[in-house]
Amino acid sequence: EIKLLRKLEKKRMQEVMEKQKEEEKAKEDKGRHYTVSVALPGSILNNAQSPELRTYLAGQIARACAIFCVDEIVVFDDQGEDSRTVEGQFDGIGKKGQACVQLARILQYLEWLLNPLDSPHHVRIDEESEYREGVVLARPTKPGKGSFVNCGMRKEVQIDRQLESGLRVTVQLDKQQNPDSKIQKGTIVSSNHPRTVSGLYWGYNVRLASCLSAVFAECPFKECYDLSIGTSERGTCVDQATLPSFSHILIVFGGLQGLEAGVDGDPNLESTDPSVLFDLYLNTCPSQGSRTIRTEEAVLISLSALRPRIDEAVRKALGS
Amino acid sequence: EIKLLRKLEKKRMQEVMEKQKEEEKAKEDKGRHYTVSVALPGSILNNAQSPELRTYLAGQIARACAIFCVDEIVVFDDQGEDSRTVEGQFDGIGKKGQACVQLARILQYLEWLLNPLDSPHHVRIDEESEYREGVVLARPTKPGKGSFVNCGMRKEVQIDRQLESGLRVTVQLDKQQNPDSKIQKGTIVSSNHPRTVSGLYWGYNVRLASCLSAVFAECPFKECYDLSIGTSERGTCVDQATLPSFSHILIVFGGLQGLEAGVDGDPNLESTDPSVLFDLYLNTCPSQGSRTIRTEEAVLISLSALRPRIDEAVRKALGS
Ligand SMILES: C[S@@+](CC[C@H](N)C(=O)[O-])C[C@H]1O[C@@H](n2cnc3c(N)ncnc32)[C@H](O)[C@@H]1O
Ligand SMILES: C[S@@+](CC[C@H](N)C(=O)[O-])C[C@H]1O[C@@H](n2cnc3c(N)ncnc32)[C@H](O)[C@@H]1O
Repeated sequence: EIKLLRKLEKKRMQEVMEKQKEEEKAKEDKGRHYTVSVALPGSILNNAQSPELRTYLAGQIARACAIFCVDEIVVFDDQGEDSRTVEGQFDGIGKKGQACVQLARILQYLEWLLNPLDSPHHVRIDEESEYREGVVLARPTKPGKGSFVNCGMRKEVQIDRQLESGLRVTVQLDKQQNPDSKIQKGTIVSSNHPRTVSGLYWGYNVRLASCLSAVFAECPFKECYDLSIGTSERGTCVDQATLPSFSHILIVFGGLQGLEAGVDGDPNLESTDPSVLFDLYLNTCPSQGSRTIRTEEAVLISLSALRPRIDEAVRKALGS
Repeated sequence: EIKLLRKLEKKRMQEVMEKQKEEEKAKEDKGRHYTVSVALPGSILNNAQSPELRTYLAGQIARACAIFCVDEIVVFDDQGEDSRTVEGQFDGIGKKGQACVQLARILQYLEWLLNPLDSPHHVRIDEESEYREGVVLARPTKPGKGSFVNCGMRKEVQIDRQLESGLRVTVQLDKQQNPDSKIQKGTIVSSNHPRTVSGLYWGYNVRLASCLSAVFAECPFKECYDLSIGTSERGTCVDQATLPSFSHILIVFGGLQGLEAGVDGDPNLESTDPSVLFDLYLNTCPSQGSRTIRTEEAVLISLSALRPRIDEAVRKALGS
């Protein structure tokens, strides 16, 4: 018996050591190589009773997504309205109609122009940060020299190439700067760079989809979403769920009528049962004390319940 | 080796059997014997920029608490204002001052008069429900007969005793009713009864506290809170936390300046470190993508993160 126990103990020690090694290896790469996307119907705005409350509601969604480091928000049409609802011009926060375009626009504004998200990419004027978002300025530059960018700092930033004025860009500031110079130097990088190289959360992209199936079909990632989760009070209990490893996770919410409305209103979907669309169909708030949970509440609740599971799936993937 | 394995297997089987037995025993008692309390500062209302948004914010807190079956909400003063802020008359949702009274009143209204919480105790007119909330009517009754109560049903309910009109009461409807009678019959029970006997969520009580320490000192439960949790981005990570068993759990949130403000503004507290006040001091949203999480967001996020842990602690206590 003692021999057997010793053997088991030795094996366990070996496992612990191996895990430590893997963790150290993972630590050297600071980048985050997965993405988190959230999809929800624009129709939720129709629930709000004033333009002020519509904006507030959109702000709740934006903040929930920023808090949980969501990289992409997809606003889909679950009302089977004509496609102008997702392609149309933004005509302001009206009371009725155009809910998808309105939600998408407010989410985009919040992502950058306004500041209440307080994400790391909303860098304050005197804050030190390796990366900054900026707008290319219409200031003439000498041939062979790069454009100037306003990055919300006291000095303007001269980048490594010439770009059209008005463009929004992500700038990596050079490590060595001349403190006496009137300008700073920087390099243009892709907006993914802060995440994939430095593991920073750098805000979300917003995308419109004309129906639920277009959320999947028009996925911007080469590899598509490789893990999709539908949310519903009729899903299986989140407490027993273990997420498999993934690169691009998609978490989908319904509106007033649930994901059933998105399925019903979608000409490309035959089944009327939303659960078959997703790898997992989860109830993220078992024994809820209110008959229904609103979408904006469900986003915070679900992302909070899924966060440790996402972390675990990522940790497992790194260790394998 | 085989002998040892058999022994282990047998022991495990025994444990499984015992657990099943305990679970069956627990199933017979449908009541819920623990309570969940949430405390937060009224000052969070001062953040909202219009009376409309103040009300909306209070509604967010009320709904978050209803969704997670919170039994008590304590609104405390973390600004060290004079005690009128928690004892004063309610003069409407003004723009400034009296934040605690205002928050408490809106929470109370939502708990009963308004309906958006959609809790089980907001029973619809034709819904079947063993219990109902009601108001004692000013209708004269014969001596020896009980008062009439409006329980929001098509028929009035005659209860088992005479009570002052205007009182809010919890009524247990008799199982056998005469369908031809113009009235229904019912018995007055305590508002705890639906929870402790039938395991139903029956809304929350609201209590005001003049400072953070009064949240503890004026606890309405005989046994006091036996598990207290403070929440903060500077707490320890919730993912590693296991809750001990408890009867009355208290979960405390800070306002704009965190729980530090509540500690600083409290004449009864010597330490300036809030973490020493609580059994556990938890960060419920590690790696947050926004610099700060607002209190109304933190309530949903934290209750979602704590829910499975509360369930587990309760399950463990039942099994022991
Ligand atoms: C107002 S609810 C939809 C209610 C609709 N009557 C239904 O039965 O699905 C809006 C959305 O919130 C999310 N949701 C609500 N409760 C949930 C729960 N317990 N678990 C997971 N998601 C939930 C779902 O995405 C749902 O489509
Ligand atoms: C606006 S925050 C307070 C921010 C304040 N600057 C601080 O550092 O504590 C309001 C409340 O939300 C809760 N909260 C915010 N972030 C949290 C986190 N990561 N974990 C747990 N609670 C949090 C806490 O109760 C906090 O007092």
